[in-house]
Amino acid sequence: MTMIDSFEELHDRLVEAGVLVPAGVDGLYARSRAFESVAGGVMSLVDAWGDSLDAERLAFPPVVARTTFERTNYIESFPDLMGSIHVFRGDDKDHAELLRRVAGEKDWPALLEPAETVLASAACHPVYALCTGTMPPEGRLFSVLGYCFRHEPSIDPARMQSFRMQEVVYVGDESGARSHRDTGLRFGLAMLRGLGLEMDAVAANDPFFGRAGRVLASGQLEQELKIEGVTPICSREHPTAIMSANCHQDHFGIPFGIQAADGSVAQSACVAFGIERITLALFHTHGLDTTTWPEDVAAQLGLGRRA
Amino acid sequence: MTMIDSFEELHDRLVEAGVLVPAGVDGLYARSRAFESVAGGVMSLVDAWGDSLDAERLAFPPVVARTTFERTNYIESFPDLMGSIHVFRGDDKDHAELLRRVAGEKDWPALLEPAETVLASAACHPVYALCTGTMPPEGRLFSVLGYCFRHEPSIDPARMQSFRMQEVVYVGDESGARSHRDTGLRFGLAMLRGLGLEMDAVAANDPFFGRAGRVLASGQLEQELKIEGVTPICSREHPTAIMSANCHQDHFGIPFGIQAADGSVAQSACVAFGIERITLALFHTHGLDTTTWPEDVAAQLGLGRRA
Repeated sequence: MTMIDSFEELHDRLVEAGVLVPAGVDGLYARSRAFESVAGGVMSLVDAWGDSLDAERLAFPPVVARTTFERTNYIESFPDLMGSIHVFRGDDKDHAELLRRVAGEKDWPALLEPAETVLASAACHPVYALCTGTMPPEGRLFSVLGYCFRHEPSIDPARMQSFRMQEVVYVGDESGARSHRDTGLRFGLAMLRGLGLEMDAVAANDPFFGRAGRVLASGQLEQELKIEGVTPICSREHPTAIMSANCHQDHFGIPFGIQAADGSVAQSACVAFGIERITLALFHTHGLDTTTWPEDVAAQLGLGRRA
Repeated sequence: MTMIDSFEELHDRLVEAGVLVPAGVDGLYARSRAFESVAGGVMSLVDAWGDSLDAERLAFPPVVARTTFERTNYIESFPDLMGSIHVFRGDDKDHAELLRRVAGEKDWPALLEPAETVLASAACHPVYALCTGTMPPEGRLFSVLGYCFRHEPSIDPARMQSFRMQEVVYVGDESGARSHRDTGLRFGLAMLRGLGLEMDAVAANDPFFGRAGRVLASGQLEQELKIEGVTPICSREHPTAIMSANCHQDHFGIPFGIQAADGSVAQSACVAFGIERITLALFHTHGLDTTTWPEDVAAQLGLGRRA
């Protein structure tokens, strides 16, 4: 294993090797061909698992309807991470004023209005809006992919502001949700270990905001609703979560008006893969030149080999 | 050819067939597996062309540095299309006020602040920020992909708010730019005709905003800086642009401080492919069930055939 001791060092080595190209803001990068090839291979493996479950595959755009976002209660739990999209709806005169204010560094955002959309915070959010109503007895399964935005500027390459999340999501009843979460955790750990990553599973909590958030976090931890698959990237003491398996209970069933087949409020679960983080963990483990990666890892990822 | 007379009819048929899934806002859709397979095939064909030119391949996230965006002058030309990202940087007390205002439909955007990023308006914008300085004599070529946002809500499925644009971009001198634009136009038309699309090339202009914009538009048209590859989707009189080949002159060279090898201000050109529009044109031409598409089209797109 390549020895890298800090995320600053990993960042610099990835940039020097051209795997990531800094895009002018901390946590924002262009991805190289090599990065995309590995990421594509990882996504194909998750796709194949979703297909084996007969999940409906959907790709979501990076923006989501504001009405959907509002129903997720994300703004209550993670206001510091969201990205609200604002647009200009004025005329020629307003435009002249907008340009004057932008040039003068005055209060130009006041001339914009909230759009019908916000940036997607999680790949699975649009799924629940598609489920309003009553689920079949076996529930519904979705295999989804989308770019997510989290406003947490950092030079830790594993903490990007804009990254892909792939999820296999179940919506149905409590036992189905628990079972999907457990099956998905097993699949994910096995898949990632099969790619040569050292994986551990740990109960975790989301980074809920503020004082009230501490209560939510400890409740989530106590009930073991969120299990993360973690791997050491720059630190053994603080390994990085590259996948998670989550029981949402009725968190989405209530606001989206979803019922299980027996008429109770639907429960949901998702198994989520952080594509950028998994890709980084692979580069960290196998080195910055993919042509030297172990044959079996390259084969699983569908990487072409050069002579 | 499937006869579809209006974009409302095309919209309804695509939705009924499950090719696109409406996502709660006009112009916002989830993409089905079939849609993604076709889109992936199109992107591979463009990738292969970029590779044949030895272009540097980069995938960009759907958000771009605000400083990059500001240098493109997009806000001067297309203020109505852009999406500005705003974030919450407050404390517990501010958060409580934010939630009160959201619930009370009061002026909550005033509690947000502009982020360091905006939504990407064009896939090629981040390229110019990477080119600041002097180009080699042969110029530089990039093959880039990114999700773009344009705020123009519409039920015309060919006018999505969030869509992928793939571009092969040249940065160098005037003759290199002109030559890349012409070569790319020929490649694009041939590739799209090879997929069974009826293509025409027409001089066009961007939808510049307002009164001043009309002057810019007619200048662009007169100098034939923008050539669109158009195909009839819902109308023969108003075919849809699914690719374009553009000479930017020094539009990006000046604000990004780029010089050609001879010390003059760099010129640039891009050949852009609207992945969603090309995919829609293919579904329109060959039908909503990809398993019935002509063998040679399916083979070029790498579509697996079912028995």
